[in-house]
Amino acid sequence: MVHGGAGALDHIDNPKDAVRYLEAIRIVMEHGRSILSQGGNAMEAVEVCTSLLEDDPLFNAGCGSVLNENGKVEMDAAIMDGRDLSAGAVAQISNIANPIQLARLVIANSEHVMLVGAGAMHFADHCGVKMMPDTYFLTDFRIKQLEQARRSHRIILDHDDAGGIEQKYGTVGAVAMDQNGHLAGATSTGGIVNKRWGRVGDSPLIGAGVYADNATCAVSSTGYGEDFMRTVLAKYISDLIEIKQLTAEQAVAEGMVYLKNKVAGRGGVITIDNQGQCAGGFTTKRMIHGIIELAGETQCRF
Amino acid sequence: MVHGGAGALDHIDNPKDAVRYLEAIRIVMEHGRSILSQGGNAMEAVEVCTSLLEDDPLFNAGCGSVLNENGKVEMDAAIMDGRDLSAGAVAQISNIANPIQLARLVIANSEHVMLVGAGAMHFADHCGVKMMPDTYFLTDFRIKQLEQARRSHRIILDHDDAGGIEQKYGTVGAVAMDQNGHLAGATSTGGIVNKRWGRVGDSPLIGAGVYADNATCAVSSTGYGEDFMRTVLAKYISDLIEIKQLTAEQAVAEGMVYLKNKVAGRGGVITIDNQGQCAGGFTTKRMIHGIIELAGETQCRF
Repeated sequence: MVHGGAGALDHIDNPKDAVRYLEAIRIVMEHGRSILSQGGNAMEAVEVCTSLLEDDPLFNAGCGSVLNENGKVEMDAAIMDGRDLSAGAVAQISNIANPIQLARLVIANSEHVMLVGAGAMHFADHCGVKMMPDTYFLTDFRIKQLEQARRSHRIILDHDDAGGIEQKYGTVGAVAMDQNGHLAGATSTGGIVNKRWGRVGDSPLIGAGVYADNATCAVSSTGYGEDFMRTVLAKYISDLIEIKQLTAEQAVAEGMVYLKNKVAGRGGVITIDNQGQCAGGFTTKRMIHGIIELAGETQCRF
Repeated sequence: MVHGGAGALDHIDNPKDAVRYLEAIRIVMEHGRSILSQGGNAMEAVEVCTSLLEDDPLFNAGCGSVLNENGKVEMDAAIMDGRDLSAGAVAQISNIANPIQLARLVIANSEHVMLVGAGAMHFADHCGVKMMPDTYFLTDFRIKQLEQARRSHRIILDHDDAGGIEQKYGTVGAVAMDQNGHLAGATSTGGIVNKRWGRVGDSPLIGAGVYADNATCAVSSTGYGEDFMRTVLAKYISDLIEIKQLTAEQAVAEGMVYLKNKVAGRGGVITIDNQGQCAGGFTTKRMIHGIIELAGETQCRF
């Protein structure tokens, strides 16, 4: 499964725009299926799918990320391997085309789970990651969006979905099960428009923005990050599956009730459980997401 | 309850040193009890107790924090209010005497949960937080400890508790229930000796290093941060109490089994449940911690 963000997403009321998003999601998922059908593992599939979404300026991750209060792109990403719970995360990074690949390098090349800011950039340099110019990340759409947010003196819009800034929760992510039954999850984001310098949201936090454990499920979240941080929602869904033996569908449904009841939370998740069952759920008006199976049809929805 | 770190803690084999640590913990807890007995709330109690531990160079938080690979003090802290799940966290901060107080300011003065690095320092300045010179934080003990770690080319020592660098998991933290039955938790740390620049551990991560929900419990963790991040252990204990209706003691016991089975995890937690029952558990040789009740005896252990 992949997702491309949750929210009001009023900009896809226009059928032509809706088609662009769904088509983008479909192509990414077919890449992922191709990797898995050739025996690739779940980690590889979620890394490649998330990288492709980062490369697409339609989505709020990598190229096309939203801008913070200083007009800068600061990105966060995390990836987790359900085989051994190894996890890698980066936050507050810039000039790196594919934050999700840097997150995976944290697993491979460090003893740590999470690196942030200048230290994370130093690590990227040490790993030989290519730096991209600021212009690679900037799009006219995001520049206009920040101007709009600044004019209204808002960090983000008010709490309902009816606001005018589109795609405000436009994180991307992927979850996968490979042919050996291994699970993995990945999440990547540019954060929220006009966010405060130094703000870290849920996406790079293991248990909030992403979780994967072969014994339970893989989860990727999207939404208003603070709500997911306070409920640690991805881990809650995993814990429901472990403790109550729920299916993905049941656990996601309970997770959405929990998110709403506890913090009036706004966003959604995609989940694949240890039986390979998929489920998506969201409390916002929409969540762009899709499901693909080895021999099945592609389903794209919002 | 308060804790002052978990690990081998061989340096307190000497009875004279052991007394210093236990006495420090006891004094801090009596401060906390005094706040609560006068009607203060749980958030205030955990903030004050954690601040006092930060001020004490015996512990790895605030003054007396360990040094990273660059010989710098970089601190992390988080606090959570069980009444409404509001939470504040800071990471990668320097020159601030009481990181836990800055974490609480994140709740009061921002729309976010977590601020890191230069952005968090900018926020501190904006809030009028006093900056302390580097010399305030440095102790001879920590300088020697870093030299020892560098000589052995280790980020941290090997995985068993038998290593020679003392107090390697010496985070501090507190959990409390006030007279209205509200819960709160707080955790603060200087991290691990010789850590990589930019490394963030579990302490400032909601659900890993700290969690509080009036409906379940308050938890503060200490240990090898990466193990707690991968298992999201504080939230797991809260989820066990919610889903299985366990007591603090049962949930902590199950949590320690989970930590060991999932990732061979090293560390411990202190927990107070929604009935006011306290429990501490650890997989390391020792955890410095204590329990105090309104009308009861002070218990300090390691």
